[in-house]
Amino acid sequence: MFNDTTAEEIEIVMQQAWKAFHAYRKYSLKQRANFMRAIAKEMEALGDVLIKIAGEETNLPEARLRNERARTIFQLTSYADACEKGDWLEARIDTAIPDKAPPKPDIRKMLVPLGPVVVFGAANFPFAYSTAGGDTATAFAAGCPVIVKAHPAHAGTSELVGKAILKAAVDCEMPEGIFAHLHGASYDVGKALIEHPFTKVVGFTGSLTGGKQLFDWANQRKVPIPVFAEMSSINPVFLLPEKMKTSAAETARMYAGSITLGAGQFCTNPGLIIGLEGPDLSAFMEVLGKEIKKIAPATMLHPGIFKNYRKKKDEALRQPGVDTVAVSETKPSLNLPAGQAGQGSPTIATATGQTFLQNPLLHQEVFGPYSLIIRCKDMKEMLQVANNLEGQLTATLMASENDIRIHDKLVEAVKNICGRIILNSVPTGVEVCLSMQHGGPFPATTDSRFGSVGADAIKRFARPIAFQNWSHEFLPDELKNENPLGIWRTVNGELSRES
Amino acid sequence: MFNDTTAEEIEIVMQQAWKAFHAYRKYSLKQRANFMRAIAKEMEALGDVLIKIAGEETNLPEARLRNERARTIFQLTSYADACEKGDWLEARIDTAIPDKAPPKPDIRKMLVPLGPVVVFGAANFPFAYSTAGGDTATAFAAGCPVIVKAHPAHAGTSELVGKAILKAAVDCEMPEGIFAHLHGASYDVGKALIEHPFTKVVGFTGSLTGGKQLFDWANQRKVPIPVFAEMSSINPVFLLPEKMKTSAAETARMYAGSITLGAGQFCTNPGLIIGLEGPDLSAFMEVLGKEIKKIAPATMLHPGIFKNYRKKKDEALRQPGVDTVAVSETKPSLNLPAGQAGQGSPTIATATGQTFLQNPLLHQEVFGPYSLIIRCKDMKEMLQVANNLEGQLTATLMASENDIRIHDKLVEAVKNICGRIILNSVPTGVEVCLSMQHGGPFPATTDSRFGSVGADAIKRFARPIAFQNWSHEFLPDELKNENPLGIWRTVNGELSRES
Repeated sequence: MFNDTTAEEIEIVMQQAWKAFHAYRKYSLKQRANFMRAIAKEMEALGDVLIKIAGEETNLPEARLRNERARTIFQLTSYADACEKGDWLEARIDTAIPDKAPPKPDIRKMLVPLGPVVVFGAANFPFAYSTAGGDTATAFAAGCPVIVKAHPAHAGTSELVGKAILKAAVDCEMPEGIFAHLHGASYDVGKALIEHPFTKVVGFTGSLTGGKQLFDWANQRKVPIPVFAEMSSINPVFLLPEKMKTSAAETARMYAGSITLGAGQFCTNPGLIIGLEGPDLSAFMEVLGKEIKKIAPATMLHPGIFKNYRKKKDEALRQPGVDTVAVSETKPSLNLPAGQAGQGSPTIATATGQTFLQNPLLHQEVFGPYSLIIRCKDMKEMLQVANNLEGQLTATLMASENDIRIHDKLVEAVKNICGRIILNSVPTGVEVCLSMQHGGPFPATTDSRFGSVGADAIKRFARPIAFQNWSHEFLPDELKNENPLGIWRTVNGELSRES
Repeated sequence: MFNDTTAEEIEIVMQQAWKAFHAYRKYSLKQRANFMRAIAKEMEALGDVLIKIAGEETNLPEARLRNERARTIFQLTSYADACEKGDWLEARIDTAIPDKAPPKPDIRKMLVPLGPVVVFGAANFPFAYSTAGGDTATAFAAGCPVIVKAHPAHAGTSELVGKAILKAAVDCEMPEGIFAHLHGASYDVGKALIEHPFTKVVGFTGSLTGGKQLFDWANQRKVPIPVFAEMSSINPVFLLPEKMKTSAAETARMYAGSITLGAGQFCTNPGLIIGLEGPDLSAFMEVLGKEIKKIAPATMLHPGIFKNYRKKKDEALRQPGVDTVAVSETKPSLNLPAGQAGQGSPTIATATGQTFLQNPLLHQEVFGPYSLIIRCKDMKEMLQVANNLEGQLTATLMASENDIRIHDKLVEAVKNICGRIILNSVPTGVEVCLSMQHGGPFPATTDSRFGSVGADAIKRFARPIAFQNWSHEFLPDELKNENPLGIWRTVNGELSRES
């Protein structure tokens, strides 16, 4: 449908982005915010056409797509507000002390943009983590031009949104090259983009294989650049004993919904549930099994994801010591028209703690409506499982207050492997707010010090610069004595919004 | 003098550090701060013995060493204050909105420590960037155990300071393994430390070759880890035309001092001066040359650094189009006792803008009292030089207000390559304060988003974690409703110190 962008076209795009960078970085916070708001309006103005095309390309239901577009618009507008507010700039002012020995100079610091950002959109979020999604919005807020490589599985959707961004750019008198939208089904386009000297930072949401490849290319450059790849997480859920005594069935019903939400195609899908062998866990498994059997398979995002789900799930189920607990009893429609993705059958499996500890394959993400229940023989083994888990986006505890008090070692171990820890709820559903952390230790992401949801994500695309002994007239407004923007700054060690 | 730590010893040290990490991360900000203050006291208590040994090992003069120790103590105590104040934690609270659809959960976020930090100290700062230097202090503040690999050129000094840290750790009842001090003249020790799975982050100050090697090893791990390496910078100084009309001689005298300060062995040493061909630049060169001739060579830090200085300087001077402007007229004592470093002769060279643009070797750091003056034929060429410079820790403009106004493109280009921009002063002298940025784009450092001086450096060793729907009793004090620590937090979007 769309031809891959050629090497020559990439060269032109990157030259324009570099030129745009030098112009755009001088645009005020207000101008950047208004541009982001204009994108939100243009996205809204695409109306039903956008929902229709996205539905055809991703098989996602209309209601979900409408919600996701609303979320994307909220991201754009709320990050625009945050951009303008300027808290993220980390403005610091230390005024001169001329009679100190040696004299202390006037020094002022703030964040400035890193340069052109290449964004690789996600298959599972055609709006919120794609063309005008979180990475693009926060890069624009930081003052960086953006080059989006469309996800080939929803290239038409991406093309439409890309045009909306370009329209907003023209309306807001943004510099030429502030945004570019490229296509590339082959790895070559991505590689050329990452290796281009004018690319200064990369945002990615997708598989571990894909993200790690980008990370390696970026680090092998003559000048390495940061890559923010959100990749792989099985989002462990720990069922603690006292809580399970009273809430096994209720928890099972809640998790049947979370595991199968959106055909299990969320990065926060709970793919691992860890409990204590015994009657309560058996009750949990029985109810979960019953619920899962009732849930019909849903068409997955694209044929590649469906194929991969079947392959990874079958591989997991074939491992010694792994038993199937339940599979949806509605038969999936496997004979769909050519090119359409198949339907993923909700599936629950189980294994002992020892089996899990000894088999690294069982630690791998199975992207889809699948979850593995680990039966630990005691709390010591559960702690061992927690200590042997890879980095995760989220981890959840189903626990009473007593459970938390008694099993404090487990709680600490769990905190240490994840970016977000949830109590007595489900990991699916990522609230867009400042306190959200959507990120985590490797392999959940390539950089656990940052996250991709919430306005703090702007900081991924910026670095500090200090102005020493600088002429007041030429300081950026953000650092001027009179504080014309009214932003929060740390002045001689104290946070203040005063001039 | 000291044997290299063996692989078996490294294993024991890392096991202890990992255990200590799980204990120390729960220590309060106050406990961490008091530990840092105790280290400062123990360092002071080492008295004259420390200065004497450091002098013997580094050839640095007593006054400089006394100043550097005072600075190190100031770092420890001022970062302790910052640690306790908690601004760096980036605490965020978004309270629940139960009647939103879907309900918004209570989410709270703060920074938590990454894990054991391996620190490679600097040759040129035996106190301030070594054993109890900036990396160690900020890692302790963040809640991380520290493993220092002593710099082989001042292993005795490092050993003494290491013992002071261990004494403070015992006095403050820190967990065993909170600090370890290792020796390693060979690369093997460093490699084993970086590759150990319990090492979670690395701090380094030294050469580009060394830092890049650590960075590559860290990225090739199964689980890559962040490396903060401060490596290489030639700290360009731009002489703008109007300023030079009035201040050529004054600037030259100021820079003769800066270039030769501490035998030129500062990472912020001005190794490149860029001016406009003509009578003012000639006057500048003449005065600078005269001053340099008067400055006696000083003994360098160690034989390796001296050898490298001679080699790199001679190589630069041999390049076609490079002419020597001046060399110190005091003969260096080259026949020093075996094992003692030679004396680096202050040297100034010059080349045209075209020569510099065409020869990448001239862009490389010559660590020592050396600076290269670039004669540009016009401002366009000066801009071209700025645009072709690698990443730098600092860049300086000698400029009148008019110069800044007229040559705004140059000013923007210079901002884009450095971490700190200085007006009408010298880059040497790094003030320890929050607004300082000591870092910059590659190859100045491996991560331009962070710096190694000032309390913001604590953030290098931490990552955010979000608590969702968490039981209030079990939240960290930093995130409790009543704000028992009285720290600044962003509550529902607004910065506040209230409960």
